[in-house]
Amino acid sequence: MPKIVDHAVRREEIARLVIRVIEKEGAEGATVRRIAQAGDFSIGVLTHYFKDKDEMVAFAFQWGAMQTFIYLDAVVAAAEPGLERLRAALAFMLPAPDTPNFIAVWLSLWGRAIRNPALAKVHGQYYEHWRRTLRRRLAEAAALGQIAAPESLRDATDLLIAGIDGLWIGATFEPRRFSLRRRRQLVDRLLAAVLGADPR
Amino acid sequence: MPKIVDHAVRREEIARLVIRVIEKEGAEGATVRRIAQAGDFSIGVLTHYFKDKDEMVAFAFQWGAMQTFIYLDAVVAAAEPGLERLRAALAFMLPAPDTPNFIAVWLSLWGRAIRNPALAKVHGQYYEHWRRTLRRRLAEAAALGQIAAPESLRDATDLLIAGIDGLWIGATFEPRRFSLRRRRQLVDRLLAAVLGADPR
Repeated sequence: MPKIVDHAVRREEIARLVIRVIEKEGAEGATVRRIAQAGDFSIGVLTHYFKDKDEMVAFAFQWGAMQTFIYLDAVVAAAEPGLERLRAALAFMLPAPDTPNFIAVWLSLWGRAIRNPALAKVHGQYYEHWRRTLRRRLAEAAALGQIAAPESLRDATDLLIAGIDGLWIGATFEPRRFSLRRRRQLVDRLLAAVLGADPR
Repeated sequence: MPKIVDHAVRREEIARLVIRVIEKEGAEGATVRRIAQAGDFSIGVLTHYFKDKDEMVAFAFQWGAMQTFIYLDAVVAAAEPGLERLRAALAFMLPAPDTPNFIAVWLSLWGRAIRNPALAKVHGQYYEHWRRTLRRRLAEAAALGQIAAPESLRDATDLLIAGIDGLWIGATFEPRRFSLRRRRQLVDRLLAAVLGADPR
């Protein structure tokens, strides 16, 4: 099926290109025309994948999100079941030198999502996936007796995700205050606060 | 001192205009030229206040931040000292129908701050102010015996702020999941988790 393979490869190639140009030139500079130039594509090739800049940002975001969750699953699988997997998942979602973060693409998505409900929906789909992952880890840690089952799984999930998002903002814009070491300590403190889990 | 008064009034007028245009047309659409048109100013008047778009966004953000903290101080002063003031401060920082949120300006600032350290510094100054406010409220609630003094005031402050930032993102992009009622419950749950404070 060479045609299908080509198509998947091309999608990935374009997504990587869009992310690279957004990271290098900022959301405003990354026009469809500029992406085409950077990748030596015709504009027609790009408009096959997205019809305007909102779709282009959504396309790049969704590809980055897929990569994030593939990577996350591998990190989680490598940790001990239960609390260690939960901690690994939360820590993975913070900026770190050795993992891609797609920060510029995230901020492009948010900047556009406040004006375009289709992009807010893309944001919501990502969070639904992320919440599902965390709920599974919370249930596993409770089943192993490492934590008490949260009174409300929904509240615990939302508070953990909110805390990680806030630390993500701190790590992104105040990296000296939120050093790599301190981020990890704060992930442990967050877990202990929300779940009463032993941070060690 | 009519000249000084005029200057302050003009600054406020321009800041409001910049915020309005960013909210209406998005960060990309809000060029210096477009702001000048919308306010019936000459471009020269605007470039007296900022030399480029990064400075324009910083200018609008700083004015919005000042308004936010003036409003916050009033909300806090109206509440009972201690835990009630702490809760009022946290709840005030979430999007609500009756308070200005400057969401579009925030996202413009962040989108630019990842590429311009001067804007990251503006972000950091805001957070320093916000942390100072919260530390004062935490100390007050502890002095009144309403909460145990946090083991680490720094960690408690950072976790509360991180949680509120994350809930802010949820409220902004998933307003149905994070209804006004649920946001308030989650603020109480966050307080209880971080401080062991009684959520009622």
